[in-house]
Amino acid sequence: MAGDSDSKDNFADQLITAIFEKNSCVVVGLDPYFHLIPDTIKQKFSPSRKQALEYASRVILEFNIQVIDLIAPFVNIVKPQIAFYELYGWWGIWAYTETIQYAKRKGLIVIGDVKRSDVPSTAEAYANAHIGDVHVNHAVEVPFGADAITVNPYLGTDSLLPFIQTAQKHRKGIFVLVKTSNPDSGEFQDLTCGEKKLHEIIAEKTHAWGKDFVGKQGYSAVGAVVGATFSREISILRKIMPTAYFLVPGYGAQGATVKDIGYCFNPDGLGAIINASRSILYAYTVSPWKEKYGVSSWKSATEEAIVKMNKEIGTVLEA
Amino acid sequence: MAGDSDSKDNFADQLITAIFEKNSCVVVGLDPYFHLIPDTIKQKFSPSRKQALEYASRVILEFNIQVIDLIAPFVNIVKPQIAFYELYGWWGIWAYTETIQYAKRKGLIVIGDVKRSDVPSTAEAYANAHIGDVHVNHAVEVPFGADAITVNPYLGTDSLLPFIQTAQKHRKGIFVLVKTSNPDSGEFQDLTCGEKKLHEIIAEKTHAWGKDFVGKQGYSAVGAVVGATFSREISILRKIMPTAYFLVPGYGAQGATVKDIGYCFNPDGLGAIINASRSILYAYTVSPWKEKYGVSSWKSATEEAIVKMNKEIGTVLEA
Repeated sequence: MAGDSDSKDNFADQLITAIFEKNSCVVVGLDPYFHLIPDTIKQKFSPSRKQALEYASRVILEFNIQVIDLIAPFVNIVKPQIAFYELYGWWGIWAYTETIQYAKRKGLIVIGDVKRSDVPSTAEAYANAHIGDVHVNHAVEVPFGADAITVNPYLGTDSLLPFIQTAQKHRKGIFVLVKTSNPDSGEFQDLTCGEKKLHEIIAEKTHAWGKDFVGKQGYSAVGAVVGATFSREISILRKIMPTAYFLVPGYGAQGATVKDIGYCFNPDGLGAIINASRSILYAYTVSPWKEKYGVSSWKSATEEAIVKMNKEIGTVLEA
Repeated sequence: MAGDSDSKDNFADQLITAIFEKNSCVVVGLDPYFHLIPDTIKQKFSPSRKQALEYASRVILEFNIQVIDLIAPFVNIVKPQIAFYELYGWWGIWAYTETIQYAKRKGLIVIGDVKRSDVPSTAEAYANAHIGDVHVNHAVEVPFGADAITVNPYLGTDSLLPFIQTAQKHRKGIFVLVKTSNPDSGEFQDLTCGEKKLHEIIAEKTHAWGKDFVGKQGYSAVGAVVGATFSREISILRKIMPTAYFLVPGYGAQGATVKDIGYCFNPDGLGAIINASRSILYAYTVSPWKEKYGVSSWKSATEEAIVKMNKEIGTVLEA
């Protein structure tokens, strides 16, 4: 699985090709909430009190496979959030790994939402685990094989270089947390340091970290996580990081609107991928599909939700 | 495994009891470097190119078990760094889980060095995974079962509350990254925001997050990671967070000295636990043990290294 990196495009070019192929810059977040997974899937497996983590993980994998099959005609990017897999221990991580492999077999780009960060020697292990490979005696193995991951910048440049170097070696990507979508994200990220806010300083660094890794389409393999819930900040960040692809959470369940999303894109209509998780996966639990479909028609709800979201984002880009 | 939390002491009290029992505030970092694990351990397992990740993970677990048996008479705290387990995929996480369980059966306190962080709903999943439990239908399972974990504060208070609340519920602990030990840690952490440095502001918050969770001995279940490599900052941080237990990396391989360590403690001789990983686990590769012992006597090297470190830190406390 290793060794063919030289012939691969820069990650940002792969991403853009994928976006054009399905005419969609939507990212479906694969965040399994066990209690929201339909019973028809759970009934395929025998629940066991002794092996509850294995049972839950098998259910989650089956749900993900059905979701991937359902959404693959409409979107090319998925983002499993590893926390929801760690919740089921090493069995959960087995389901995470199998989910990535299944999505890749279906031709999708997989962003592992892992938000990893550590001192350099440890960051190197994380990087090789998630977007690189590992040597065991004479074997070379790919532990998780995501195409890109999210990383936390708090520890500084030397903590990020192993991720950047590993991404470059394997033609993978990283998305640096710049301005997150949670309500308290401003507490530290918006602090004024000299004449700039902390997240603006980190945005400048993100631009600098990525400047040597710009692909043919003008975008870098070093992207940024920018929450859609803060439209004023997005406009400024778009200028500070013109070549960074933005991974934008917050659409749907977290409350960001179509208008907020608009600020994430460059004039070329590129530069952002928009994530939605719960509002797609569990569309059958939210309006207007809750009223229209029951859980037995969850697939219709999810399909309509993804088609609607593609259309909404498309409208932003045409405006 | 859940349900007995009410009768348990505050995490900081558990930690102090453990320190007094072995008269050691040393934390042994269980950071498996496969190529440094002695061949005598590797030879117990059949290497397979097809199952290289399983093979490596079984070797790592066996090494950890032998290390834990070796060090348990001298120290009561271990800290597996999850990155070095993720490197071997879900099999590695199996080894991580089994390592925690073995250490706990031996009566040790286990700090999972996971440096997790995310938006609140995701942080809750991480917290339950690492220091809490998960409900699957009518079963309650403990996915990893560490006694404490490290967390990254960049996302703000709401991202940390799920960790704090889960810690309190299960009488576990967290250590917030305040000032890390890597060379570039100052890049963002030392930025001046108003009249204070960013890491000082985060230290003030860490003190505030922990103030309702102070145990009988006067220390909080909310601790701080403070790198031993920055002695001037440590003195200031000790004053800002008088009730926080410091988890101090950087001793040994990362270059901090016995004198640097001294600033981490309060006048009561408490308040800090000092981590060493490579300099203990692979003592046979570093002076003076490299010259004295070959790899075949790695256990003697590790045992002497841990005894020497206990003595060095003890000297600091007596001075």
